[in-house]
Amino acid sequence: MAGKNQTEVLIDGRIYTLSGYESEEYLQRVASYLSSKIGEIKRSEGYNRLSRDLKSIMLDLNVADDYFKTKKKADGFEEQIAEKDREIYDVKRELVALQVELETASKTIESLKDSRTEDQKKIAALEARLGQRPNNNGSAGRRN
Amino acid sequence: MAGKNQTEVLIDGRIYTLSGYESEEYLQRVASYLSSKIGEIKRSEGYNRLSRDLKSIMLDLNVADDYFKTKKKADGFEEQIAEKDREIYDVKRELVALQVELETASKTIESLKDSRTEDQKKIAALEARLGQRPNNNGSAGRRN
Repeated sequence: MAGKNQTEVLIDGRIYTLSGYESEEYLQRVASYLSSKIGEIKRSEGYNRLSRDLKSIMLDLNVADDYFKTKKKADGFEEQIAEKDREIYDVKRELVALQVELETASKTIESLKDSRTEDQKKIAALEARLGQRPNNNGSAGRRN
Repeated sequence: MAGKNQTEVLIDGRIYTLSGYESEEYLQRVASYLSSKIGEIKRSEGYNRLSRDLKSIMLDLNVADDYFKTKKKADGFEEQIAEKDREIYDVKRELVALQVELETASKTIESLKDSRTEDQKKIAALEARLGQRPNNNGSAGRRN
């Protein structure tokens, strides 16, 4: 783990020295985000009439709102991931079933092809026997 | 759109009246979250020696940190969703290719079966012709 960093950041025109294990880049990003949030709420109606305490709580509520909305988004994404995982599981199962079916079909094709080869041999043999008979008979006739 | 709600919330022992379009349930959840965050940072070392301004910025930084970490998580989830979408697309394409292959195999099986039926008929016919010959000859012989 890296050591603690000391980082000066500017939030709404004030310099703060932050110390922590986060990178300076990250802390600057957080500070810049807070400054822009403060800028946003300063532009909202009636802000200047609010007490210092209310101004502060208004910022807290705004940032917390960003957090809750992002959390809701993240939770939704997590659900989508679980759904997609189920879909991947189903499609992969279907794929495996089809692969098995295709393997069975390939074996059936091989077996049918073998049978056909046998049939063709049988046909050739039968045709040869049929072809020989009249010849044998004929030649036998001629010989007689 | 629902009208503006006026909701009293308790944050760190103080009552605030919030008005907004958010549900009371949501605002209470945000207030409760902020109270627990304040409780957390109050327990941190040296908190009591901080100025009011620093206490306030410490809370803001903490909440912003929750927001950024959740945002990072949500972004990561979004990437995972895109990856899973690509995976689903690939597996589905493979599935379609296998379905086409299986259809071709089924047609090949049908065609081979038809050919075998034809072969079997041919064999039966040839065997019948071979079977008849000696009988015809024989019966002819007997008749003579």
